[in-house]
Amino acid sequence: MKILKETLTSITASNKEMERETRKKWDSLVKPMGSLGLMEEITIKIAGMTGNLKNSISKRAIVVMASDNGVTEEGVSAAPPIFTTLLAESTVKKITGVAALAEFTNTDVKVVDIGLLGEVNHPSIIHKKINNGTKNFTKEPAMTYAEAIKAIEVGIEIGDDLYKEGYDILGTGELGIGNTTTSSAILSVLLDLDVDQTCGKGAGLTEEQLEGKKKAIQKGINLHQPNKEDVIDVIAKVGGFDIAGMCGLFLSAAKNKKPIVIDGFISSVAALCAVKLNFFVKDYIIPSHLSFEVGASSVMEELELMPMLHMGMRLGEGSGCPLAFQIIEAGLYTLENMGTFEEASINSEALIDIRESEKVIE
Amino acid sequence: MKILKETLTSITASNKEMERETRKKWDSLVKPMGSLGLMEEITIKIAGMTGNLKNSISKRAIVVMASDNGVTEEGVSAAPPIFTTLLAESTVKKITGVAALAEFTNTDVKVVDIGLLGEVNHPSIIHKKINNGTKNFTKEPAMTYAEAIKAIEVGIEIGDDLYKEGYDILGTGELGIGNTTTSSAILSVLLDLDVDQTCGKGAGLTEEQLEGKKKAIQKGINLHQPNKEDVIDVIAKVGGFDIAGMCGLFLSAAKNKKPIVIDGFISSVAALCAVKLNFFVKDYIIPSHLSFEVGASSVMEELELMPMLHMGMRLGEGSGCPLAFQIIEAGLYTLENMGTFEEASINSEALIDIRESEKVIE
Repeated sequence: MKILKETLTSITASNKEMERETRKKWDSLVKPMGSLGLMEEITIKIAGMTGNLKNSISKRAIVVMASDNGVTEEGVSAAPPIFTTLLAESTVKKITGVAALAEFTNTDVKVVDIGLLGEVNHPSIIHKKINNGTKNFTKEPAMTYAEAIKAIEVGIEIGDDLYKEGYDILGTGELGIGNTTTSSAILSVLLDLDVDQTCGKGAGLTEEQLEGKKKAIQKGINLHQPNKEDVIDVIAKVGGFDIAGMCGLFLSAAKNKKPIVIDGFISSVAALCAVKLNFFVKDYIIPSHLSFEVGASSVMEELELMPMLHMGMRLGEGSGCPLAFQIIEAGLYTLENMGTFEEASINSEALIDIRESEKVIE
Repeated sequence: MKILKETLTSITASNKEMERETRKKWDSLVKPMGSLGLMEEITIKIAGMTGNLKNSISKRAIVVMASDNGVTEEGVSAAPPIFTTLLAESTVKKITGVAALAEFTNTDVKVVDIGLLGEVNHPSIIHKKINNGTKNFTKEPAMTYAEAIKAIEVGIEIGDDLYKEGYDILGTGELGIGNTTTSSAILSVLLDLDVDQTCGKGAGLTEEQLEGKKKAIQKGINLHQPNKEDVIDVIAKVGGFDIAGMCGLFLSAAKNKKPIVIDGFISSVAALCAVKLNFFVKDYIIPSHLSFEVGASSVMEELELMPMLHMGMRLGEGSGCPLAFQIIEAGLYTLENMGTFEEASINSEALIDIRESEKVIE
């Protein structure tokens, strides 16, 4: 609890003065004001986080929190639980979607076993298993309150270590069969939304299976009555270790005054949990894409975030983050390398023309 | 007219068999089917264009068609006409938005003077001036029918040359003070849309100026009664050389069976013109971002294209293309470098676990 408490008290708002200064720099460049849209806004936001006008995100990693969910017993997912471990293994073998996209964009991938049922034996796996998966929340709470805190603190510590190692930006990813179910459950509780508004087909359910998924979520919520004012209670009762871990990553970013990127639906719910724990976390979060999952846009609206990418993606794993990194880096480069109106005018034959003709008119 | 005619007759649909084969390859990879959304769709579409399962877009250029519009006399733009030449000059000096973004993404920029009022003296400018800007379409047709054809053919020839030089993909860009006005006019005619639905504030008009812009467009349409069944007539009467030139680029891409990327509102209207000239051009066009301009989504709907990026951008110049290139390249890389389900299962400790436990159960 100590790490979490200390983290929450140390988080402050980002630097609005530096944001203004960065906007002023954009406005001096040879283009209509604001015409690069979100590309400008994101670089302005990052300047506010770091307190620097010039920023780089060349050293970057995606942290993939991998864990299993007991609620899969209820048939809420199209894939069997063993797939979580299989995909964690495949990610360190560099053959999953997030692995390929990270490789393409010079991004490191850190896979964390924060609660897998199986074991992955690979030197690059970060072993932080809280438990062998969560419990089936339609019967008992997914985890204890203490476990929820521990999982959040795992995320904080991993984030702290990585930012200390020199990472400029982190992306959040997850692997966890059944984790759109836990995400929908948390979202329904936190935003008082009907299950129909938060629950979709995940990796590919039939209509009938979708109904079963919704019933399981509703059953869990009815049984445990999570307290929406206490995020940790909500995560413990109907959440997952992966979501808790990512929540910790978002808190760490805010504490370290560094940017962190949301992937899809599941990591956006983790971001929402972090913001509910400390409002200023919002200042450090950058969205990537708008997930295909039903509940995704509700979270974005609540967090007042506008995802740059509308790709209809629903893979998870952190796969949206490399694409966002590319755009952010392009924005930072453009801010540094565009010319000002003044530079454009110097020795401009066009402007000399206009001046000459004005002389003639005089 | 000969080049245009030959081009139009040589364009055929893309290879649907190769599209199916590429989709099959995506479906074999270790992820839920279709879960990479548009990233999958775009690579599938490109495979259909080229007829190859494996594709690269490493050699790429943005062609920036620069020209002036006589209708600026009506005060339809926030910037004076001389800015077109100034920005063309600034682009070859590599200090504009598109220049910076292209530099960042290893993209060449080819600036074409297809109708500037001024002169840009720089070795890298492609000189193809049809005329010193167009006429004010509220008083006379913007250009002659012959000029419209000539401008389209300039685009075709430049595209043909670049694809022959080995460019894998082209992006379309433009510079032309007043060209959101000409684009809105063309769009209103081609899709029978009210000026309110096609006309926005461009680079930054006031509400009053916006009303003036709409009136100018309506006046031009009423005066010339462009024939919506004859795209060339529409371009000649209320269009611009830049739009005609980009229209030619889209036709060239389809002829050469190579991909071409739309930037924002203006280039999307040029794409619409090209598709109206030959329906199969649609198979070769990839959108980038959804422009902030009012009419942009109407064009995307008509072309049945889904822009990947929602960035609120409204710079033009081709600035959305480098961002799209990054995503397309990431998609092509992912298709080649992800593993199959079979590869994921081989030697998987997770699956061995499951097999062992099944044995125990037996």
